[in-house]
Amino acid sequence: MKSILITGISGFVGGHYTRFLLNTKKDVIIHGISRSKPVWDFIKDRKKNLNSIHFYKFDLLDSTPLNRFMKDIQPDYILHLAALSSVAESWRTPVDSFCNNTTAFLNIVEAARNENPDCKILSVGSSEVYGIVKNEDLPIPETYRLSPSNPYAAARLSQEYLAHIYAKGYNLNICCARSFNHIGPGQKDHFVVSSIAKQFADISVNGKNPVINIGEGSIIRDFLDVEDVIVAYNAIFEKGLSGETYNVCSGKGYSILDIVNSLSEITLIKITIEQQKDLIRPVDNPVIIGNNHKIIEQTGWKPTIPFKATLKKIFHYWCKHV
Amino acid sequence: MKSILITGISGFVGGHYTRFLLNTKKDVIIHGISRSKPVWDFIKDRKKNLNSIHFYKFDLLDSTPLNRFMKDIQPDYILHLAALSSVAESWRTPVDSFCNNTTAFLNIVEAARNENPDCKILSVGSSEVYGIVKNEDLPIPETYRLSPSNPYAAARLSQEYLAHIYAKGYNLNICCARSFNHIGPGQKDHFVVSSIAKQFADISVNGKNPVINIGEGSIIRDFLDVEDVIVAYNAIFEKGLSGETYNVCSGKGYSILDIVNSLSEITLIKITIEQQKDLIRPVDNPVIIGNNHKIIEQTGWKPTIPFKATLKKIFHYWCKHV
Repeated sequence: MKSILITGISGFVGGHYTRFLLNTKKDVIIHGISRSKPVWDFIKDRKKNLNSIHFYKFDLLDSTPLNRFMKDIQPDYILHLAALSSVAESWRTPVDSFCNNTTAFLNIVEAARNENPDCKILSVGSSEVYGIVKNEDLPIPETYRLSPSNPYAAARLSQEYLAHIYAKGYNLNICCARSFNHIGPGQKDHFVVSSIAKQFADISVNGKNPVINIGEGSIIRDFLDVEDVIVAYNAIFEKGLSGETYNVCSGKGYSILDIVNSLSEITLIKITIEQQKDLIRPVDNPVIIGNNHKIIEQTGWKPTIPFKATLKKIFHYWCKHV
Repeated sequence: MKSILITGISGFVGGHYTRFLLNTKKDVIIHGISRSKPVWDFIKDRKKNLNSIHFYKFDLLDSTPLNRFMKDIQPDYILHLAALSSVAESWRTPVDSFCNNTTAFLNIVEAARNENPDCKILSVGSSEVYGIVKNEDLPIPETYRLSPSNPYAAARLSQEYLAHIYAKGYNLNICCARSFNHIGPGQKDHFVVSSIAKQFADISVNGKNPVINIGEGSIIRDFLDVEDVIVAYNAIFEKGLSGETYNVCSGKGYSILDIVNSLSEITLIKITIEQQKDLIRPVDNPVIIGNNHKIIEQTGWKPTIPFKATLKKIFHYWCKHV
């Protein structure tokens, strides 16, 4: 019987990862930490599996309960998802964003170092660490120079450096993921794809004006279905090498306008687009597309879900939730 | 009349920078922040100048008094020196070391952003951000890849990234220094050159056994006299470009054994060397030597004090203080 600790279990990826474990791993005990109680639709349907989930409500910024918890629970795996993951919010509150993200991570690895040094840790980070990327360098491999251009990205890169230092200096078993944008049902609507799909659902379900508000429409990102993301994380737990960092991405890029146009095709709704100045960030990356050769070669993982299939799922999710 | 805020004014570099200002800039008001009252020998001799120094005792981790202070004082320049600067200590208390260093810096730049956005800031960092360096790449230029290998170095690199983000994203005027080892009279004896010079003074003044305790003797560092360091900081304030990072270094390397042998020659004391295992760090850089062409070209600064002259000054300092 193996056990896993998932920080930020109540979040978007935490929910999907938990469902993945319940569906595929009958012999895993799940310990979830979060500041808020999870609200997952799927929990209702799966009563018999729920005995394997243990939920703990506390703040990762407080190291005392975390150390006690780590000593008691001794998880075999730690998936560190908990984060303040909004770039826009990090521009508004840079100190809170940076300090909370780095301190939560440090408290986790420090508790592991002191109380549970043999566990395997996956530190989830972000493609934002690459910063402004030249078109001719796309798709970006892990060896590309790092140049975080917002407070959130700086925290994520610090987390990576600290992970490597804990792996080499303290001999912990830690892998890092550089996750590119991931999308799927249940993601909050301050993330761009959710925001756009929700606006389409509002038009479709509530008859709102067919106007879609976006920030900078030309921005291109590498969007990966959250179901592919969690299989990638599982592959890194199984086959990732300690001290290594893996891009988790599709290898393909879509612009914000592509998303709007695809959803317009999927929903058969003709819309007009309005650009909102307050959605444009002070410094932003025009294009990010990742190179996923390393994770494919080292773990055998690969993305499987087509982009439009994901957009359709997200739209249907919002049709039930607007 | 210009004013400067110096954080960590009670420290080694803070004291030397203050003396430099008192000696060379008659029209500068100095505001110093520190957690502890400064104890400077030179203060006794220079009563007439001391009206231009204002000392404030508070903790940079507490942003409230800092914001109020920044609003009231409106310094033209900010020299951010305050730091927990021991690599060895950062391995013992990685969370405190990382969080205190990054939070103190963030609180300073955030206070500047909110209350005093036109000031010029010098963020003092460290050559430790380069990590393990290949011999064939020495001396290291600023463009060398960054790879911090201890918790202190990770904090210093985070500070640099945050400085660049505040410069570009919030339009603050910030330069960064990557300071290599600096040495001089008054530096605490947990730093290697001070430790060795103090041991020589103990032998010379107190007749202790002629045994010098060191860690790894083959480690090579780029040591710069603190008097050269402060002139470099002043040059960056005067001519440094916002968003730029400058190596502050001598361009020459000396090993720990070189220091012991030079002090043995200077003092005419024959010693034996004992290696202390607890002085050896978990992961360490065998050699660091910096390339100082950028600061020389952009500001006209250059190092002026020979290495042995500096060692002599430090030995004489310790002869008065053991």
